Amino acid sequence: MKAELLYEGKAKKVYQTEIPGRLVLSYKNDATAFNGVKKKTFAGKGRLNNEISSRIFEFLHDKGIETHFIEKLNETEQLVYQTEIIPIEVVVRNLATGSITKRLGMEEKTIFYPPIVEFFYKNDELGDPLINDEHALFLTNVTPIELQEMKGKALKINQILSELFQRLDITLVDFKLEFGRMIDGTIILADEISPDTCRLWDKKTEGKLDKDVFRQGIGDLIEVYEEILDRLERV
Amino acid sequence: MKAELLYEGKAKKVYQTEIPGRLVLSYKNDATAFNGVKKKTFAGKGRLNNEISSRIFEFLHDKGIETHFIEKLNETEQLVYQTEIIPIEVVVRNLATGSITKRLGMEEKTIFYPPIVEFFYKNDELGDPLINDEHALFLTNVTPIELQEMKGKALKINQILSELFQRLDITLVDFKLEFGRMIDGTIILADEISPDTCRLWDKKTEGKLDKDVFRQGIGDLIEVYEEILDRLERV
Repeated sequence: MKAELLYEGKAKKVYQTEIPGRLVLSYKNDATAFNGVKKKTFAGKGRLNNEISSRIFEFLHDKGIETHFIEKLNETEQLVYQTEIIPIEVVVRNLATGSITKRLGMEEKTIFYPPIVEFFYKNDELGDPLINDEHALFLTNVTPIELQEMKGKALKINQILSELFQRLDITLVDFKLEFGRMIDGTIILADEISPDTCRLWDKKTEGKLDKDVFRQGIGDLIEVYEEILDRLERV
Repeated sequence: MKAELLYEGKAKKVYQTEIPGRLVLSYKNDATAFNGVKKKTFAGKGRLNNEISSRIFEFLHDKGIETHFIEKLNETEQLVYQTEIIPIEVVVRNLATGSITKRLGMEEKTIFYPPIVEFFYKNDELGDPLINDEHALFLTNVTPIELQEMKGKALKINQILSELFQRLDITLVDFKLEFGRMIDGTIILADEISPDTCRLWDKKTEGKLDKDVFRQGIGDLIEVYEEILDRLERV
């Protein structure tokens, strides 16, 4: 089914298929952090993220969120609609942790209600800098209305996923989304949602169940990703 | 007329007066750059900035912009309404230069049309970080409507001052504003507008007529500030 390799990212490869407008996402076993400075390969990571992201995208679809996800193909691959990725990382924060605490001098676990949405310009060379709406309009082809729609969708997804994880005794602390433009011009959710792109804290122990265990060297990545998948299988 | 010293900043001192709700701004001869790392005293700078900022605030007042400025008192001092300064530096950019070119990988002199408005959180310890609207709402007491009003006023001031400087053969490249809240709750323009807070380029020579001559060590600060005042006196 796969044809030409279109793009290789830090955690995924993207292949053309024989069907126009459909791509294969192939999840790799590589973990990277700090803009690629820290790297390691974990046997099983690709399988886990493919499985977790597929389940989350199916769950979002059932709740009325349009996404690029079509179907899981095999252990490490999924079929998606081809989109032109908008070079903005959309971050939603429910609790302060990580970069925002240093950047804005905030206490760890400061509660954001309403949640804070941030845009970062997807550009490795520049270190994915924070941008405001006007930068986003200047740097990308999105319109002001589309930018508001992206923010609204990000907040809706936050609401849906916060409720989902709540049922699994997990706090959705923050997460990153990417959106893509379909050939008809509409903007839909793309990329992945997994412990690579979310901060997930166990409600009882406050233990980290996400890529921070690798970033901070404080736990077994495969063990915590397995834990997330186990809990998602209960839904 | 002056009573107690309320506050000493990098370039100004603020004094209480006998009249409640009125303050004296006293312009110092100090120039600082790079968050206070580079410092120098220039005899005459306080007088020039007091004169330039007074003229610009009077000009804005005549164009219908409410400001804290009441009157120039003497060479280095002016009387202003007391406001609670909103800890946001509002930057308007017509052309890319300085920090934005490095931050977002933009060519020098990229034209922003419409102009770009940026908010920075006024906090020396944090290095005045860039913030978005949602950060501003979380970090300060401004409402969403007030934030939009601040943006609108900044763009209106940009239009008025761009036209003013145009007549003086000067390009208003970018500038920084601060707003303050009056006792009745209204938000008005505060602080100063001077070659300390604007980038001003001679239209013919493209020579810098602002604090960049000090930041970059490329000219005589007093000479270029005198040049700005001379041209303003022609209006």
